[in-house]
Amino acid sequence: MRSIRPVQKVIDAFEALPGVGPKSAARLAYYLLNVPQEKLTKFADALDNLKKDTKLCKLCFNVGEEDFCPVCQDSTRSKTQVCVVENSLDLLAFERADGYKGVYHVLGGVINPLANIGPDDLRIPQLMARVKAGEIKELIIATNPNMEGEATAMYLTMKIKDMGLSNEIKITRIGRGLPTGADVEYADGQTLMRALESRSEMS
Amino acid sequence: MRSIRPVQKVIDAFEALPGVGPKSAARLAYYLLNVPQEKLTKFADALDNLKKDTKLCKLCFNVGEEDFCPVCQDSTRSKTQVCVVENSLDLLAFERADGYKGVYHVLGGVINPLANIGPDDLRIPQLMARVKAGEIKELIIATNPNMEGEATAMYLTMKIKDMGLSNEIKITRIGRGLPTGADVEYADGQTLMRALESRSEMS
Repeated sequence: MRSIRPVQKVIDAFEALPGVGPKSAARLAYYLLNVPQEKLTKFADALDNLKKDTKLCKLCFNVGEEDFCPVCQDSTRSKTQVCVVENSLDLLAFERADGYKGVYHVLGGVINPLANIGPDDLRIPQLMARVKAGEIKELIIATNPNMEGEATAMYLTMKIKDMGLSNEIKITRIGRGLPTGADVEYADGQTLMRALESRSEMS
Repeated sequence: MRSIRPVQKVIDAFEALPGVGPKSAARLAYYLLNVPQEKLTKFADALDNLKKDTKLCKLCFNVGEEDFCPVCQDSTRSKTQVCVVENSLDLLAFERADGYKGVYHVLGGVINPLANIGPDDLRIPQLMARVKAGEIKELIIATNPNMEGEATAMYLTMKIKDMGLSNEIKITRIGRGLPTGADVEYADGQTLMRALESRSEMS
């Protein structure tokens, strides 16, 4: 027994979202039946206009409302330092941390052969074009510290070396170790080994 | 640092849903940025039409598309047996179990003094009108087996007794005990005691 058509449509839409199962989708749809129509219309409008009202930055591919995103438009940000992130949410996490003064490049994912995602499916050609343009002095690779993220970081490094630009551009990878507030006792072995490797002298 | 306005609107809408926190809301909104516009519009239309295309059944208050819901319209269903549920999702759970041949009454919640919900905020007056009409022979109270559900069940029973109709109408409560597939070892004490009380002879 499925729900009636108008309700089922909403359930199906929710179920297509990542991390929303059939039971949560049904609960959300039936919850919305008790919400004022005005709020439903507002929700619907926000969804319908989400892509219409946004643009990808022509330089870094961050989400914005104009041709260039707020970060790229900001004249106080150093254009010589570029932090390479997987997506706009990762960029936002760095912005929230409020300490980075360079700009970004949003790859739009990571290299993942199992999902059939190669370098040309990402904004890697565009990154290489920015690198070739010559303004960049440091590339900070901030892809996630998992298999695909590391592979993407290695690919980018190799690519820039192949282009013969590794002397002009410093390529760095975000630090590895224990996150703030963590417990040595509960940290996994790999994290501990990485923390030992990247130890620094007490000042 | 918040997201840009069009994205933030979608995040806010998701965050207003029950069980969706700020991080999941952001993840969903940024995920939708990569979905084709056509799907977004479909989602938006489904939401906007959810309430416009549905009606509450005039008899049992289940969600439907016409004045009377599919269950109430079904002539093979016994109108003398009424199962009282909290909401349409609970009704759907019984329909999915596919064995009940009576009809329903959807209360639209439970009596909950802490949330300021009294009998008149629910469809209890309408249930009493159905009871008074005289067709009903059995009322199966299927509110949830928690404090509010039990209180509502007791209230309904008392109310019908007060109306002097308890001889004409059998009032029952859904059975209590161990759910199928459960483990006696992990069952809580109250469930075990209820299972003992409602034990039945082996046939």
